[in-house]
Amino acid sequence: MKSKDIPEIIRAKEMGFCFGVKGAVELSEELSETRKDCKIYMLGMLVHNEHVIDKLKAQGVEILEEETLMEDRDNLQEGDVVIVRAHGTIKPLYDKLIERRVEIHDAACIFVSTIRKTLMEKEKEGYEILFLGDINHPEVKGIISFGKKVQVIKDIDALKAFEINGNKRYALLTQTTLNKNLFLEVKKYIESTFDNIDIFDKICGATYVRQKAVEELAHKVDILLVVGGKNSSNTKKLYEISKKINLNTYLIQDEKTLDRSWLNGVKKVGITAGASTPEEVIEKIENIIRGTI
Amino acid sequence: MKSKDIPEIIRAKEMGFCFGVKGAVELSEELSETRKDCKIYMLGMLVHNEHVIDKLKAQGVEILEEETLMEDRDNLQEGDVVIVRAHGTIKPLYDKLIERRVEIHDAACIFVSTIRKTLMEKEKEGYEILFLGDINHPEVKGIISFGKKVQVIKDIDALKAFEINGNKRYALLTQTTLNKNLFLEVKKYIESTFDNIDIFDKICGATYVRQKAVEELAHKVDILLVVGGKNSSNTKKLYEISKKINLNTYLIQDEKTLDRSWLNGVKKVGITAGASTPEEVIEKIENIIRGTI
Repeated sequence: MKSKDIPEIIRAKEMGFCFGVKGAVELSEELSETRKDCKIYMLGMLVHNEHVIDKLKAQGVEILEEETLMEDRDNLQEGDVVIVRAHGTIKPLYDKLIERRVEIHDAACIFVSTIRKTLMEKEKEGYEILFLGDINHPEVKGIISFGKKVQVIKDIDALKAFEINGNKRYALLTQTTLNKNLFLEVKKYIESTFDNIDIFDKICGATYVRQKAVEELAHKVDILLVVGGKNSSNTKKLYEISKKINLNTYLIQDEKTLDRSWLNGVKKVGITAGASTPEEVIEKIENIIRGTI
Repeated sequence: MKSKDIPEIIRAKEMGFCFGVKGAVELSEELSETRKDCKIYMLGMLVHNEHVIDKLKAQGVEILEEETLMEDRDNLQEGDVVIVRAHGTIKPLYDKLIERRVEIHDAACIFVSTIRKTLMEKEKEGYEILFLGDINHPEVKGIISFGKKVQVIKDIDALKAFEINGNKRYALLTQTTLNKNLFLEVKKYIESTFDNIDIFDKICGATYVRQKAVEELAHKVDILLVVGGKNSSNTKKLYEISKKINLNTYLIQDEKTLDRSWLNGVKKVGITAGASTPEEVIEKIENIIRGTI
């Protein structure tokens, strides 16, 4: 690219590492530095970003697969350090860790643990629990494992297919990284159809402001790059929101997955990043766009 | 200070400009650049930080006092631009702005407008509204002006003094910048005492994570500086939370209000900043501590 063709880069007003991810990563780094005396494991992917995981592995933090622990096929020793991922995990695994007498460091985000608490409170008060989210996501699996009976619903059609009993009271909770527009659609439908479902919006502030920010940015740029891990739920939502507004939206993991031909003739490039995408990955992409590397 | 005496500076994991403030400031700056054809006003203090306000004034954005507009003592002309502050304003003033045919740009934070909406919804459903917050704060004044009858409660004693009618249903809403610990205390009291008060936690994510972050930081440092405006509610809460843990907590507006004697013999200085404190103010303070200015 000639220098006069270098596009302007506009970052979303909010993007990248959220509070929960920052905490989980810093805790792991601190443990890897200070606890050279024992093995340190993260239980599953600490956060949904391959670059973060690779960096931690290089610092000596190993992955302990959740299934392996569940089936006692692991190499855990008493006294080892186990960090519970930012999404939290399921109750049987928390119990397992206690039983195995390891040193547990829970990096579950405060917003995730708040939902757990609300779920248990509402069940105790006699509510039936509906949970709006993705049943395959570790956050959701973890949270619902603390309830007695939870119905997970992925969208408005799933809710319509579920039979609501007029004599029961329901509490609807949500995944922290839900698409706000999907939530509002479901909320509207519930409020116009039922009077026995109380709604508890648990989409976290970080998700909300990142979604609002990308929505705004998508209108202003020629192409929009969403940077984030393949398994990252919040990253996918950022992509979906932007793609509806701006067809030239691309989801990439890092600078290697950036196709330079997307930049041909482009004046304004928007960038956003998922809550577990490290700043250095974003900067590398920006440097390629600017032609400095 | 000799170079070996320079203390280490540790920033809180989350601090400074929140999403709402960023949006309000950027909107105002954009308007001041692009709308040279007319007068631009901010209605009251756009955000609670003197440095931000001074900078905007220098760019030609004038303050329109809310009382002045209310009493028609202003100089507003049809077509002037008026930016509604990040805290929102009261309904009669929104109406006044429409009546005066000015160009309204509402910079009210999305979390504030969501509370407004919840309040109106719950009133419509027949709930009595309780509001936990500071009745003198513009955010609270603004939100409750959208309700028909709202009881504002500043703490647990105020709640105890208020007579709850067992035959009515109540909804308790909160200010976005409330102290999380105060909220939890009130919540616990309500849940053990009443069964006809539904609680809607509306403390915003930005407030929550800044409070959690300062709580963590206060344990690790010798002194802690909280940087923020005199009228900033969220800044005061950060100060209160830190002060309980670390007696050497100081609330300052900028580098001029920093007393260098606090730094004598200090090894670790913690810094946090309110949601409306600009980055440059924080950096100036850090440079003084490092002895570079």
